[in-house]
Amino acid sequence: MNHLKKITLTEDEIPHQWYNIVADMPNKPLPPLHPGTKEPIGPEMLAPLFPMALIKQEVTGDTWVDIPEEVRDVYKIWRPTPMYRAFGLEKALGTNSKIYYKYEGVSPAGSHKPNTAVPQAYYNRQEGVKRITTETGAGQWGSALSFACQLFGIECEVYMVRVSYEGKPYRKILMNTWGATVYPSPSDRTESGRKILAQDPNSPGSLGIAISEAVELAMQDDQTKYALGSVLNHVLMHQTVIGLESIKQLEKAGDMPDIVVAPFGGGSNFAGIAFPFLRYNLTEGKNIRCIAAEPASCPKLTRGEFRYDLGDTVGMTPLLPMYTLGHNFVPAPIHAGGLRYHGAGAIVSQLLKDGLIEAQSLKQLECFESGILFARTEGIVPAPEATHAIATVMREAKKADEAGESKTILFNLCGHGHFDMGAYEQYLSGKLVEHEVTQEEISASLAELDTPVIA
Amino acid sequence: MNHLKKITLTEDEIPHQWYNIVADMPNKPLPPLHPGTKEPIGPEMLAPLFPMALIKQEVTGDTWVDIPEEVRDVYKIWRPTPMYRAFGLEKALGTNSKIYYKYEGVSPAGSHKPNTAVPQAYYNRQEGVKRITTETGAGQWGSALSFACQLFGIECEVYMVRVSYEGKPYRKILMNTWGATVYPSPSDRTESGRKILAQDPNSPGSLGIAISEAVELAMQDDQTKYALGSVLNHVLMHQTVIGLESIKQLEKAGDMPDIVVAPFGGGSNFAGIAFPFLRYNLTEGKNIRCIAAEPASCPKLTRGEFRYDLGDTVGMTPLLPMYTLGHNFVPAPIHAGGLRYHGAGAIVSQLLKDGLIEAQSLKQLECFESGILFARTEGIVPAPEATHAIATVMREAKKADEAGESKTILFNLCGHGHFDMGAYEQYLSGKLVEHEVTQEEISASLAELDTPVIA
Repeated sequence: MNHLKKITLTEDEIPHQWYNIVADMPNKPLPPLHPGTKEPIGPEMLAPLFPMALIKQEVTGDTWVDIPEEVRDVYKIWRPTPMYRAFGLEKALGTNSKIYYKYEGVSPAGSHKPNTAVPQAYYNRQEGVKRITTETGAGQWGSALSFACQLFGIECEVYMVRVSYEGKPYRKILMNTWGATVYPSPSDRTESGRKILAQDPNSPGSLGIAISEAVELAMQDDQTKYALGSVLNHVLMHQTVIGLESIKQLEKAGDMPDIVVAPFGGGSNFAGIAFPFLRYNLTEGKNIRCIAAEPASCPKLTRGEFRYDLGDTVGMTPLLPMYTLGHNFVPAPIHAGGLRYHGAGAIVSQLLKDGLIEAQSLKQLECFESGILFARTEGIVPAPEATHAIATVMREAKKADEAGESKTILFNLCGHGHFDMGAYEQYLSGKLVEHEVTQEEISASLAELDTPVIA
Repeated sequence: MNHLKKITLTEDEIPHQWYNIVADMPNKPLPPLHPGTKEPIGPEMLAPLFPMALIKQEVTGDTWVDIPEEVRDVYKIWRPTPMYRAFGLEKALGTNSKIYYKYEGVSPAGSHKPNTAVPQAYYNRQEGVKRITTETGAGQWGSALSFACQLFGIECEVYMVRVSYEGKPYRKILMNTWGATVYPSPSDRTESGRKILAQDPNSPGSLGIAISEAVELAMQDDQTKYALGSVLNHVLMHQTVIGLESIKQLEKAGDMPDIVVAPFGGGSNFAGIAFPFLRYNLTEGKNIRCIAAEPASCPKLTRGEFRYDLGDTVGMTPLLPMYTLGHNFVPAPIHAGGLRYHGAGAIVSQLLKDGLIEAQSLKQLECFESGILFARTEGIVPAPEATHAIATVMREAKKADEAGESKTILFNLCGHGHFDMGAYEQYLSGKLVEHEVTQEEISASLAELDTPVIA
């Protein structure tokens, strides 16, 4: 069966349950702490922000969680997503390894983000929520949530990092097309935004600031909740439909991966494809290498510290256990906006701490070079975030060839680059700049924290 | 089986043959004429422009033409494309009709155009062609051909209507990403371009001018050929994979359409989905209504004349039998750039003349309104071209409801709108202007022609 280029599933093969890796982890993720008392907080503290169904998912120890039929019905718009064998790329590389990719760019919003936006909108609607606030950087998450809220009849208010709001107007219009209201952040609509603007009226904004604004608004209003596109346990769990489908597809191809690769921002992309494969390692003694590919300019996994830190800039969130660069760290303006977050989710951080997953960091020139080769051999133009996985796959294929081995490599092609052509233009015209981050910058950012380091 | 939202096929269900409707037409399409002698031209006259394999397809009387395996292998990147039941749109309309759509936007270039770009590049490569020239308006065709040429190792040179080159830079970068060279047209690289520039140095360009430039260059060089994205018989035939897959998908759903709708530019979009269904009318006495949806500002089918006319502006092409507005007609700058062509292909024109198909014209405000409703109920943001089909479907569903009937309607969602967000912004901000074309303008344009009118 290995001649298949595209491995498809029918809509009845969309998973009926999400996989919760927490149940199988040898060391469970640490609890969030109250930022004042530094004591663990209970689920009830999250109630102003999230509907109870999602809070339950955040703390559940169950291995499998049912996907509501109404959510599966919406998933059918783009799921099951196709899996491809990268024959064109393999040939161009001259590799003896086999490369597969799962393509999440077929969703209406163009990335994997709707996998969690849809259930989040659904559970909010079930509990009578009228409005959801959120933040977005490059716009992938904001557009996914706009799409999902529109389908479930919920108002969606998006705080978009100002530099992206101004530089990526088409993502904003996409959100408007789905009926959402989009504000540049920092805005004067919140205490948090006004505080930042008072310090710097020309602030370009950051994800951390935008989170502060969205969280603040949700705290103030009973009928408004907040939604996050990565980091949290329930978000990562929703994404496991990617890996669960991938297992079925590779079974059809009669194959299993030696290596699974995904881009890494807050963890949802990586968790989505990797956790269902990690389950074989955790429960059946398999040894599938799962590699998180992060940008060299925002290297929380490879150069950050494992300690408690805020999820936002202003301090509206609990303290979360994360590999972090510090919540005031401002990543360079790389084109992979979805990977510009200072910290990693609690589950992924624990897995890394325990040596159960790996991480690599990549500079953006190597990533775009890989992305162009991919577009020219496989046809699909990848999102800048996705090129981090492609470049990592190319490294691993080369290593295997040099060792005289043949590996089976699977990666998550998490989105298309249709809204990122400005980045490709910069690369093609030789104007793309490389961003370095020094150890001094990272140390200085971490030195500002007064939160517990995790042994 | 009618509960299915998405009807998928596996890659072995990609058709093995294209359908050539000419074999089943009661009156065959008229031949092209030499622009000087006005005598029918033989296939050999086309040899400087096209490889022999495509010229043979242009004139074949065979009902079925084999699809080469190498072409099917590339089709596998995005084919079979999904078919959807529009449950969300049906509910919003409150209609008793069933609405299905075939989604061609999953191709790497984002539209149905690669269905013919790939075989055209393939046959050119088979015959040793080194370079292909072409024109593009909004950029859908140019990007499809760039993608196809890259995969087959052929240079691609695209003449892009200047107003689009300047106003839609991201489509140009997409072509560059696939390795193509793109020039604004009119350019100073051709006799044709220089002639236009001498008359008007600020000419915004038009499809007709860009065709003149691309054809001129192909005529001058043995190793360079030309490729057209619509109008010609072989192009329409390549697109029939859309309708052939649709038939298999509707069989799985246990359904058959009463009405098939597609947007209409030069005919390839419409032919692609409609011809395989028209076959049932022509050979089995069925009565499936096939409706071409054209823009009111470029109404060749509903208000043009059936006569011989040039395919381009300068006069580099043979005379083609077409419903036309005259080759000097300059359509208003509507956002559906892919529908801004003055004439219709020979086959489609003959079918319309013989009353075997229908046509409707639509203004762009109605189209965008329908497109927004579609995006908000079905999730996918349609290309402006595709909104013409959606608006027509909504008209037909309403008519059926008013008559107390329930129809099964299928339409071709020929592409996504990711590169057209500027158009959506105009609509959402109330700035979209309506374009009318008067009978005087059409008559004046047609009065310039000295070519045979067809009785």
